[in-house]
Amino acid sequence: MERLLITGAAGGLGRMMRERLSHVATKLRLSDIADLGEAGPNEELVQCDLADEAAVHDLVAGCDGIVHFGGVSVEDRFDKIMAGNIQGVYNLYEACRANGMPRIVFASSNHTIGFHPQDRHLTAHDPMKPDGLYGVSKCFGEAIASMYHSKFGQETALVRIGSCFPRPTNHRMLATWFSPDDFVSLIETVFNVPRLGCPVIWGVSDNDEMWWDNSAARYLGWRPKDSSSRFREEVEAENARPAPDSPDALWQGGKFTADPIYRD
Amino acid sequence: MERLLITGAAGGLGRMMRERLSHVATKLRLSDIADLGEAGPNEELVQCDLADEAAVHDLVAGCDGIVHFGGVSVEDRFDKIMAGNIQGVYNLYEACRANGMPRIVFASSNHTIGFHPQDRHLTAHDPMKPDGLYGVSKCFGEAIASMYHSKFGQETALVRIGSCFPRPTNHRMLATWFSPDDFVSLIETVFNVPRLGCPVIWGVSDNDEMWWDNSAARYLGWRPKDSSSRFREEVEAENARPAPDSPDALWQGGKFTADPIYRD
Amino acid sequence: MERLLITGAAGGLGRMMRERLSHVATKLRLSDIADLGEAGPNEELVQCDLADEAAVHDLVAGCDGIVHFGGVSVEDRFDKIMAGNIQGVYNLYEACRANGMPRIVFASSNHTIGFHPQDRHLTAHDPMKPDGLYGVSKCFGEAIASMYHSKFGQETALVRIGSCFPRPTNHRMLATWFSPDDFVSLIETVFNVPRLGCPVIWGVSDNDEMWWDNSAARYLGWRPKDSSSRFREEVEAENARPAPDSPDALWQGGKFTADPIYRD
Amino acid sequence: MERLLITGAAGGLGRMMRERLSHVATKLRLSDIADLGEAGPNEELVQCDLADEAAVHDLVAGCDGIVHFGGVSVEDRFDKIMAGNIQGVYNLYEACRANGMPRIVFASSNHTIGFHPQDRHLTAHDPMKPDGLYGVSKCFGEAIASMYHSKFGQETALVRIGSCFPRPTNHRMLATWFSPDDFVSLIETVFNVPRLGCPVIWGVSDNDEMWWDNSAARYLGWRPKDSSSRFREEVEAENARPAPDSPDALWQGGKFTADPIYRD
Amino acid sequence: MERLLITGAAGGLGRMMRERLSHVATKLRLSDIADLGEAGPNEELVQCDLADEAAVHDLVAGCDGIVHFGGVSVEDRFDKIMAGNIQGVYNLYEACRANGMPRIVFASSNHTIGFHPQDRHLTAHDPMKPDGLYGVSKCFGEAIASMYHSKFGQETALVRIGSCFPRPTNHRMLATWFSPDDFVSLIETVFNVPRLGCPVIWGVSDNDEMWWDNSAARYLGWRPKDSSSRFREEVEAENARPAPDSPDALWQGGKFTADPIYRD
Amino acid sequence: MERLLITGAAGGLGRMMRERLSHVATKLRLSDIADLGEAGPNEELVQCDLADEAAVHDLVAGCDGIVHFGGVSVEDRFDKIMAGNIQGVYNLYEACRANGMPRIVFASSNHTIGFHPQDRHLTAHDPMKPDGLYGVSKCFGEAIASMYHSKFGQETALVRIGSCFPRPTNHRMLATWFSPDDFVSLIETVFNVPRLGCPVIWGVSDNDEMWWDNSAARYLGWRPKDSSSRFREEVEAENARPAPDSPDALWQGGKFTADPIYRD
Repeated sequence: MERLLITGAAGGLGRMMRERLSHVATKLRLSDIADLGEAGPNEELVQCDLADEAAVHDLVAGCDGIVHFGGVSVEDRFDKIMAGNIQGVYNLYEACRANGMPRIVFASSNHTIGFHPQDRHLTAHDPMKPDGLYGVSKCFGEAIASMYHSKFGQETALVRIGSCFPRPTNHRMLATWFSPDDFVSLIETVFNVPRLGCPVIWGVSDNDEMWWDNSAARYLGWRPKDSSSRFREEVEAENARPAPDSPDALWQGGKFTADPIYRD
Repeated sequence: MERLLITGAAGGLGRMMRERLSHVATKLRLSDIADLGEAGPNEELVQCDLADEAAVHDLVAGCDGIVHFGGVSVEDRFDKIMAGNIQGVYNLYEACRANGMPRIVFASSNHTIGFHPQDRHLTAHDPMKPDGLYGVSKCFGEAIASMYHSKFGQETALVRIGSCFPRPTNHRMLATWFSPDDFVSLIETVFNVPRLGCPVIWGVSDNDEMWWDNSAARYLGWRPKDSSSRFREEVEAENARPAPDSPDALWQGGKFTADPIYRD
Repeated sequence: MERLLITGAAGGLGRMMRERLSHVATKLRLSDIADLGEAGPNEELVQCDLADEAAVHDLVAGCDGIVHFGGVSVEDRFDKIMAGNIQGVYNLYEACRANGMPRIVFASSNHTIGFHPQDRHLTAHDPMKPDGLYGVSKCFGEAIASMYHSKFGQETALVRIGSCFPRPTNHRMLATWFSPDDFVSLIETVFNVPRLGCPVIWGVSDNDEMWWDNSAARYLGWRPKDSSSRFREEVEAENARPAPDSPDALWQGGKFTADPIYRD
Repeated sequence: MERLLITGAAGGLGRMMRERLSHVATKLRLSDIADLGEAGPNEELVQCDLADEAAVHDLVAGCDGIVHFGGVSVEDRFDKIMAGNIQGVYNLYEACRANGMPRIVFASSNHTIGFHPQDRHLTAHDPMKPDGLYGVSKCFGEAIASMYHSKFGQETALVRIGSCFPRPTNHRMLATWFSPDDFVSLIETVFNVPRLGCPVIWGVSDNDEMWWDNSAARYLGWRPKDSSSRFREEVEAENARPAPDSPDALWQGGKFTADPIYRD
Repeated sequence: MERLLITGAAGGLGRMMRERLSHVATKLRLSDIADLGEAGPNEELVQCDLADEAAVHDLVAGCDGIVHFGGVSVEDRFDKIMAGNIQGVYNLYEACRANGMPRIVFASSNHTIGFHPQDRHLTAHDPMKPDGLYGVSKCFGEAIASMYHSKFGQETALVRIGSCFPRPTNHRMLATWFSPDDFVSLIETVFNVPRLGCPVIWGVSDNDEMWWDNSAARYLGWRPKDSSSRFREEVEAENARPAPDSPDALWQGGKFTADPIYRD
Repeated sequence: MERLLITGAAGGLGRMMRERLSHVATKLRLSDIADLGEAGPNEELVQCDLADEAAVHDLVAGCDGIVHFGGVSVEDRFDKIMAGNIQGVYNLYEACRANGMPRIVFASSNHTIGFHPQDRHLTAHDPMKPDGLYGVSKCFGEAIASMYHSKFGQETALVRIGSCFPRPTNHRMLATWFSPDDFVSLIETVFNVPRLGCPVIWGVSDNDEMWWDNSAARYLGWRPKDSSSRFREEVEAENARPAPDSPDALWQGGKFTADPIYRD
C-alpha cells in the first residue's frame, strides 16, 4: 500500500498502533485533533477535527487505506459524541466516496452489544444492545458503513474491539482481551484479502473465556494467536473476584452499563 | 390516558393520525416545527424544534404517552437529518427520562432494512441494512431506544412502518401497506398492555404479499385486520409492472435504495 | 373407542371434561382419589390412589385410551407432588406398558416453562424453565413419556395446558386461555390420527396474545377455534392492569413464579 | 400473456389444467408425447418428445410462459425417467435460454423430500430426502433451475406439488391435498408478479394437517384458499385408518417410500 | 474455599475425585451411604442417606461448595432411583437454600439425551431424550436446578458427564470419554468464576469424535485438554467393531437404550 | 478390508490416491475408461465405462469398499456428464445394491454449492446452488446416495471436495485446498467407523480461510491436519490478487460460475 491513514493516532489505540503498522504502507498519514508529536521517517502528521467536513476530505485524499480510530472512545457528553462519532463518521464516508473508496478498518466496539449477558454466545448477526451513548454512536457508525457498502460498494471491516491493551487487567478482560499483535494481524489481513465486503468482526484474541463467534468472518483467513490465559494468575492476584451480580460479571459491556448519561 | 403527545403532527402521518387518535387521551398535545392550524376541542398545539433540547423538555413535561412522528421522514441532507432525527431523538429520550418515562411509539421505518431483497422473509432480529441516511438515522433511533430501555426501563414500541397511506398506490405497496386503521389499533394496544418492553414491530397490514414476520411481537395481542388485496386491481391498472431488476422489485426499501446522498 | 379412562375426573379439569368427552368412547372409566359422585349411563367410577402401583395397573387394564388429569395440579408440598406426579406417573406408564400401550393425553403445563419472559416466543423445542415444584414434576412427566416412546413406542400427547377455564379471568389469561371446546377437539384429534408420536402441544386457543408456536404439531391437523378476545372488555373491566414488573406481566408462568417452596 | 406453453398436457395434471388455464394467455400451446385430442379455440397442439432437443427448441420458441408438467410423474424405470425428467429438463432449459427465457412453473414434487417423517415441519431450505428415482429426478430438475437462475437469470417457480386431485382420497392427502383451484391461482400469481426469482413453493392448500411452511414464498402474494377439511368425513369413511408404522403414516412421501427400484 | 462437600464419595466417580480435589478446599467433607474408609488429613467423613431430609440439611451446613455425585448412577429399579435421585436431589436443594446457597456441581448425564442418534450434533438447548429411568431422574435434577436458579439464584453447573474413567474402553467412549483431569479442571473453573449461573455443560474431553457443542458454556473459560485419540489403537484392538445398527453405534446413550425397566 | 475399488483411477485424483490408498486393503481394484498403466503388486486393473450397466455390476462384485472418483470431473457437454455422472452413478448404486452394499466414498464437489458467495459460512444443510452442469450432476449423485440410504441402508460419505491438489496454486485455493493426506485420513476413517450413515462432509483441510462448517460430521472422528497457510507466500507471489468482483473472489465455486454451457 502506498499511503495508509490512521485517524485518532494520538489516542490510546492510535499510539499503540502507530509503530506497529509502519510496515503496512510506504507512508503513514497520522491524524488527530490532539498533538501527534514528531513525525517519524515515513510519517505525515495532520491535525484535523473530524467534524470539519472539508478538512476530512483533504485528509482522506490520496490514501489507499484507512484505520479509523478517531472520535470519542469512551462514554461522554452527547454533543462531543455527536461531533466526533456521528458528524465525523459521515464526513469520513463522504470523503472516501469522493476519493476512490479506500478500504476502512472501523473501530467499532463491544459496547454496541454491551447489554447482552455474559453467558450469551453471540454471532455477528445477533441484535445490537448498546450500553450507552458511546455504544449507540458505534451502532450508527456500523449502519453508515453498511449503507455505503450496499449503495456504493465501499468496503469496511467493522471490528467490534473488546479490550485492546498490552495485557488484560481485570477479570472481564480475560474474555474481552484483544492483543495488539492480533489486531495488527487482522489489519494486515483486511488490506490483503481480494474481497473484504463489510463484515462484523469480533476484535478479540483466542481467549479461553469466549462470548463471541467469529466463524462468519473466517472467509477472511484471519485467526487470532494470543490468549489471555497466560495472564490469568496475575489478573486474579491483582483483582478481587467481582460479585456475581456486579455489572462486570453480568454484562458483556461491563461497567459501561452502569454509566449515567453525562450531561456536563 | 390523560395527555398524549403527538410530535410531527403537521406531517403526512401526523395529519392522518391527529383525528384518529383523539379518543385515546383526554388531551392531545400536538407539536411540529411547521404550522398546526387551529386547535380542536381537546387539543394543545405547541410549535417546537426537536433540535432544541430545552423546548423538547417542556414539550414532554406532563405527558403520559408519546407518538413520535417528528423529524425528517424522507431521504434528505445529512445536516437536516442530524438535527431532527439524531439530536432530536436524543432530546426526546432525555426529556422522557426527566419526566417519568412515558411510553413512546417510535416511528421507525422499513428503510432500516431496505437493502434486504424482497424475497427474504425477515424477523425482527435480522441485521439492519439501511438504504440511505434517513434509514441510518432510524437505526440510530432504535439504538437509543434500546439503550434507554436496558439502562433505565424506558419502554418504546419500535414500529418499522411500511407505507402508511390511505391506500397502496404502487406494486411495492401491496407488500408494505400499513392501513391507518391498523396503525391506530396498534397504538391503542401499545398504550393498553400491562408490559410493553422495547419490541421491534413491523408496521404492516395483513397483506397477501408479506416480507416480515411479526410473531415475536404477538405477546402484545395486536393483529392487523386490513389487507392491500382489495386494492390490487386498481394498483395494477394504474401502474406498469416494475421490471424484475428495478429497485422497486428487488429491494425491500424500493426506490430509496437508488437515492443519492443529497448534498444540497 | 371402546373404553376411555379419565384420571383426576373429580378435579377442575376432570369435571369440565367428564361430560364433554362422553361421546368419544362407548364407556368412560373415571377415576380419582376423591369422590366422583354418581355414575352416568356410560360411566364406570373407580376410586384410585395413583401412588398405588397395583391399583393403577387394575385401573388401566381394558382401556383403549387415557386422558391423564390425575395428580397434583397446583404448587404444593413436595411429598404430595412426588406421590401423585412422580410415583403416580411412573405407575401409569408401567401399567400402560403392561396393557397394550393405549394412547395417553398427558396434562402437562405451561409451568414447565414458566420462567420464560412473556415477550419470548417459544417453540416446543425451547429449553424448559419450570417455575416451581409442580412445574418440575411436569418436566419429569414429559421425560417419562419421551423415554417410553423412544424405548417402547408408547404414544403420548404432551399438552402444555395454558389456562383451561370457561373464560379468561385476568390479563395473563388473555394469552394463556385454552377453551374447553378447543381442548375437546384436541383430544378427539389425538385419538383419531393414524400416528401420534410423542409431540409437545401448546394447549392454548387462537388468542390475539400469543407466546407459543404450535407449528411443529400441525401434522396432527388440530387447529383451535376459540379466542380470548371476545372476553377482553370484561377482563379489563374486572381487573386492574398489572404493573409492568409484576410476575403476572413478566413471566409466562405468572404468579406461580412468586410461589415459595411449600413445606407444610 | 400472448402464448403459454403447457407441457405434459395429456397427463393427469395437464388435463385438469388445460381448461382452467385458458384465460391466462391469448394462446395455449399444449404439448405431450401422447395424443392431445382436438384443439380448442385458443389452443395449439404439438406432439413432442421432451428427450428430442431440437423438437423442444421448436416447442418453446415464441412462448411467453411455460407450465412444465411433462415427463414421468410416478416411480418408473430409470431409462424412462432419464429420458423425460433429466434429458428432457436439460432440453427445456436450453430451449428457454435460446428463446428469451420465459418464466417457468416447474412441477416439482413432495417426493424430493419424501423420506422426512410426517411429524417434521419443513421449510423450503431443509435438505432434500428423495424417496425414489422419480424424486431424485425432481431434485435434478430443481438443481438445473437453480443453476440457470444463478448463471443466466432464468426465473422458475419450483412447485413441490403435494397431491393435486379434485379431492383428497386417503388419510395422507388430508395433509398433502393441493386443490386445482389453488394451483391455478398460484400459476396466475407466478406470471403476474414483478419479480419471481427461483423460489421453492410448497404446492399445498390451506389444510388443517400441515407439514410445510410456505412463509419464505410469501413475497409472491399467493395464499391458498381451499382446505381438505371439508372432505375429512368422506375420506375417513372410505379408508381404514393407516397403521401408525405404515409408510402412509410415517413418511411425507407415503407409499412411494416403499416402492422398489423398477428394472423392467 | 473453606469446605467442599463431595457426595457419593464412595462411588466410582467419587473415589477417583476424592484425591484429585483435595487441593480445592481447606477441608473436604465426604459423604456416602456406603463406607468411606479412613479419613485423610483434610477430610471429614459423613455417612448419609440422601433420602433423609434432616441428615442432608446437616450434611450441607457449613459447606462453601458441593460436588454432587451421590444417588444412583446406573439404570436401576424406580424405587431406588426415586429415593436417591429425586427425593435426594430435592433434599439437597432445600438444604442449600437453607444454608447460603453454595455452588453445586451436579453430575448430570449423557443419558438425559441418550436417544438422540450419534450423527446428530447437539447443543445444550436441544430437547432431552432420556434413555431410561436413570436418565429421566437426571432430567428431573436439571429441572430442579433450573427452578432454584430462576427462583432463588442458586447456581449449579449441570455437567452432562459422558464417560468419566481413567481411559476409554470401547468404541463409543472414543466419543464420550471425559478424562478425570479435564473434569477436575472444570470443577476448579466452576468454583473460580465470578458468575456461574446454571449452565448445561457437556462433560467430555477434546476428542476427535464429537457429538456435543460446548460453545454456549465458553463464557466460563474452561477448555478440555485431553483427547481419547491416544487410546484409539488399544480400544480398537481390544474391541470388535460394533455393528452399524447396534445400540452402541446408533444412539448417544449406547447400551442404556436397550436396558429394560428393572422391576426387581 | 479385502478389496477396495477405486473408480476413475486414471484421473487426477485417482492417480494421486492410487499409491496413497494401497495400505487400506489387501487388493486394490482400479478402474477407468482410460488406460491405467501397469498393475502394481496388489492391484487389479479393470477398464470400464461407467455408462455400461452390466460392466459396472461386474466391476463392483466382490468389493468391500468403493472410492468413486469416476465420471466427468469438470464442466463439460451435457451428454458426457449424463453418461458418466448420471447413468454412471445410477449404475454404481444398483451394482452396490446387488452386491452387499459396500461403503462408498462419493467424490461430490464444492460446485454443488458454487453460487454461494464466499462470505457465507455454510453448513452441510444449506441449500445447494450448483454452478454448472457438472455441479448439477453432483447434486444428482448426492440425491441418489440419500435415497439409497433411506430406502436400503446403503452407506455413503458425500465428500464435497474443495481443491485436492499437491498444493494450493491460487488465492481461492487458500480457502478450498484439501491436502491429499487429509483426504487419505478421511477415507481411512470412513471405512473404519462402526456406523457411517450418509453424511455430507466438506472435503477441505484446516485452512485459515474457511467457508464450511464440518461440525455435523464430527461424529466420525475425522479432523484435517494440514493447512494452506504454509503456502500463502508462494501463492501470493505467483498470482495477482483477484479483483473484488471477479468470480474467483465472489463465489465459492470460483471460475466455474463463469463457465458457459458447453454445447460442442
